Amino acid sequence: MSTDLSFVKKRKYPETRVMSGFMELLPEEQIEFDKIKATIMETYESFGFTALDTPFIERLEILYAKDEGDRDVGENATLVYEIAPRGEEKEAKSGLRFDLTVPLARYVADHFNDLSFPFRRCHISKVHRGERAQKGRFREFYQCDVDVIGHNTLSIRYDAEIPSIIYQLFKKLNFGKFTIRVNNRKLLNGLIESLECNASIEQVLGVVDRIEKIEPSEFMKQLEELGLTDAMIDLLVRFFDIKGSNDDVLHHIKAFNIGNENFVAGFNELTTVVDFMKALGVDDTYYKIDPVVVRGMNYYTGTVYETMLDDHKELGSICGGGRFDNLASKYTKEHLPGVGISIGLTRLFYKLREVGVIKCTTKTTAEVIVVPKDDSNILTALNVSQRLRAEGFKVDVLLESLNAKKQFSYVGRKDTPFTVVVGTEENQDGATLQYKTTDGMIEKHAIELTELATRIKKLYAL
Amino acid sequence: MSTDLSFVKKRKYPETRVMSGFMELLPEEQIEFDKIKATIMETYESFGFTALDTPFIERLEILYAKDEGDRDVGENATLVYEIAPRGEEKEAKSGLRFDLTVPLARYVADHFNDLSFPFRRCHISKVHRGERAQKGRFREFYQCDVDVIGHNTLSIRYDAEIPSIIYQLFKKLNFGKFTIRVNNRKLLNGLIESLECNASIEQVLGVVDRIEKIEPSEFMKQLEELGLTDAMIDLLVRFFDIKGSNDDVLHHIKAFNIGNENFVAGFNELTTVVDFMKALGVDDTYYKIDPVVVRGMNYYTGTVYETMLDDHKELGSICGGGRFDNLASKYTKEHLPGVGISIGLTRLFYKLREVGVIKCTTKTTAEVIVVPKDDSNILTALNVSQRLRAEGFKVDVLLESLNAKKQFSYVGRKDTPFTVVVGTEENQDGATLQYKTTDGMIEKHAIELTELATRIKKLYAL
Repeated sequence: MSTDLSFVKKRKYPETRVMSGFMELLPEEQIEFDKIKATIMETYESFGFTALDTPFIERLEILYAKDEGDRDVGENATLVYEIAPRGEEKEAKSGLRFDLTVPLARYVADHFNDLSFPFRRCHISKVHRGERAQKGRFREFYQCDVDVIGHNTLSIRYDAEIPSIIYQLFKKLNFGKFTIRVNNRKLLNGLIESLECNASIEQVLGVVDRIEKIEPSEFMKQLEELGLTDAMIDLLVRFFDIKGSNDDVLHHIKAFNIGNENFVAGFNELTTVVDFMKALGVDDTYYKIDPVVVRGMNYYTGTVYETMLDDHKELGSICGGGRFDNLASKYTKEHLPGVGISIGLTRLFYKLREVGVIKCTTKTTAEVIVVPKDDSNILTALNVSQRLRAEGFKVDVLLESLNAKKQFSYVGRKDTPFTVVVGTEENQDGATLQYKTTDGMIEKHAIELTELATRIKKLYAL
Repeated sequence: MSTDLSFVKKRKYPETRVMSGFMELLPEEQIEFDKIKATIMETYESFGFTALDTPFIERLEILYAKDEGDRDVGENATLVYEIAPRGEEKEAKSGLRFDLTVPLARYVADHFNDLSFPFRRCHISKVHRGERAQKGRFREFYQCDVDVIGHNTLSIRYDAEIPSIIYQLFKKLNFGKFTIRVNNRKLLNGLIESLECNASIEQVLGVVDRIEKIEPSEFMKQLEELGLTDAMIDLLVRFFDIKGSNDDVLHHIKAFNIGNENFVAGFNELTTVVDFMKALGVDDTYYKIDPVVVRGMNYYTGTVYETMLDDHKELGSICGGGRFDNLASKYTKEHLPGVGISIGLTRLFYKLREVGVIKCTTKTTAEVIVVPKDDSNILTALNVSQRLRAEGFKVDVLLESLNAKKQFSYVGRKDTPFTVVVGTEENQDGATLQYKTTDGMIEKHAIELTELATRIKKLYAL
């Protein structure tokens, strides 16, 4: 970057490109992005979740809060965009939130007495992370979170509802076949406990978490390095190789016949989650009990989820989440178990646009453009536009005096479903309605102004 | 604040309240806020505007850019939340945007070749200003902007469309009778030029801008101090006292018979704006040509707007805007005239909630709560909930095992329009549907599960 600086000084205007790691979309891209965002919100709300909104700026004491026993705030501290101190005022030190979970924890702690539990909230907004910028990795991005928070207890049934939301959502989004992978941390903990090995559960899970990224020989080698015996490693290899239908997988897991509390609890939870997902109408080719899903190291305590697009496995997990024992232990003495999931929308959009799954063809949200043939028709055009709006249409009206060629070019670039030209030669008191038929032909009809709304509605219904 | 610090150190948990100057809402408030936000977006889109989204963080060279001749960046620099430098990386210095106009200017400059003009964009998002916090004044707030940007020229007709949007919007929002005040800066400039006084236009407008906040004697005194003669002051007093219907006001303005270019241009523009607003169906009791409207000092160059709620004049202007000659002169050589308006939604919501115009009574976005009578009905309840969702309803289902009293309390606190209890004693295989009638009575009916969706739809239609 330093070579650029002389150029910066010489040029007349400041740099207008967004900084690296930030996404800025053209109108046709934004329209597509916003459609997806709206579908996510709609789906979350259809399950009775209410949208929240919290400040972008939080106190550093919140962002860096730690539980007793937590090691340090190192990881968060390198992520957070801190706000520069503002001189005279004795303000709290603050920074931009790096996720929506910390603000949720603070919110629930702060407003505890005003909320009713189980508390269903969703939140779709931007968060900021000062990560090293690289292609497809963003420093500002949308998270789309949905969580249920209980007070003291939260039924395992909610663990089935969360993947059902994801199922309904990705069916609607139509990005192709997907698979929700479900697992349970208690099951994994119980499995590792049963080994009675010297390595900690954390250490062994650390290796399991990498299983899909390394060769089987490397997997075994890393377990060996943790001091596991051949018998232990053999057991793990067999366990993490379990495949088949969900019923088969449950059957195989059961056959390991491990009796400790965690394993049994995890197994029962998994079974319940699957039963309830069925009752919620989730097609069982869309989810898979998968023993290798770990989801990071410390946060989750029971059910965990990941979702993959079957035709775009290279994207990795496009949404993940799970059950946590206590949301807000850093902020309140109340015990608040919860379960939730999050979609990193900015990266998902970027990647799916890159591979061509998302196409951006709509140039404007307007459905109709009204064009006055010439200046003498402007008042009529305005009048027509307002009548169409009153009927619920989104209407752009071209108010600039342009010659026919430029009018034509404007209309072409906007490419709305309908164009109404007011006061043509053939139809001075009326209009010409122009639209593309389903087979791509362009139709033009002379039409009375009073008939416009009805006609367009009929054509939309086709 | 310094007295608090010892407390901070002693307490177990960090401060969970949001910082002063930030608004955080409870679910029932957020629901109302989001409804208003959605109505604003819908209305902007109905006029063919496409929503944009830009980063929250901009380079300081953008935020502090100035035109040749601009004095300094002092005002912006005190407003901007700057991002603290992040050590090792040679990043651009950056800060949080303080409005949505600077990002629009940068966006149009950057993406000029990919946009088609006139370019209609709207943008509803948060901005940050490090202002001294005081009641009803926010450091993080929503701006709701709508602008049309032309290339080289932009017809005066767009100046009529902007207040028509505001008219349609505030009719829908139903905050009571409002008045859009319209004026023209060219008219004011022409008027002051005609005086041929020694004071600058800026100085005189500075006094005019305060006319509604000071006594008439003070107004005259301040003009005197600028060196204006009694005759000049008399002319201004008469001009700024013009009242009456819009036709009357135009008539009176014309009668001043001032012939300079600016005055004539401003008068003609005002006349055109009024004519076009009529064609767009704006009821003329909702707007008023008002010669005293100035709207700040330098930015606007033609039409200017303010909007007041007639019953809550103490709120001041709830949305303002106008015509500007050149949007992005700091960022590009392209000449980009525009016209637009902005609503400061956070303050408006806060104030209207305070005076009781906005009421927050909806506790959840869910329309139906499904409650299993006991655990044996859970799978049926899930099934019912999903069938209702498939019919388009927003459905919460209570999955926690609660005793009857706690179930009742949960349902009461959510207060959804409909409650479905699955598997009651009277109707083991069916449900009980419960709802409030329009006169506030609570109705309860036994109902078959298959009839639920149809029945609720019918009741909604009432």
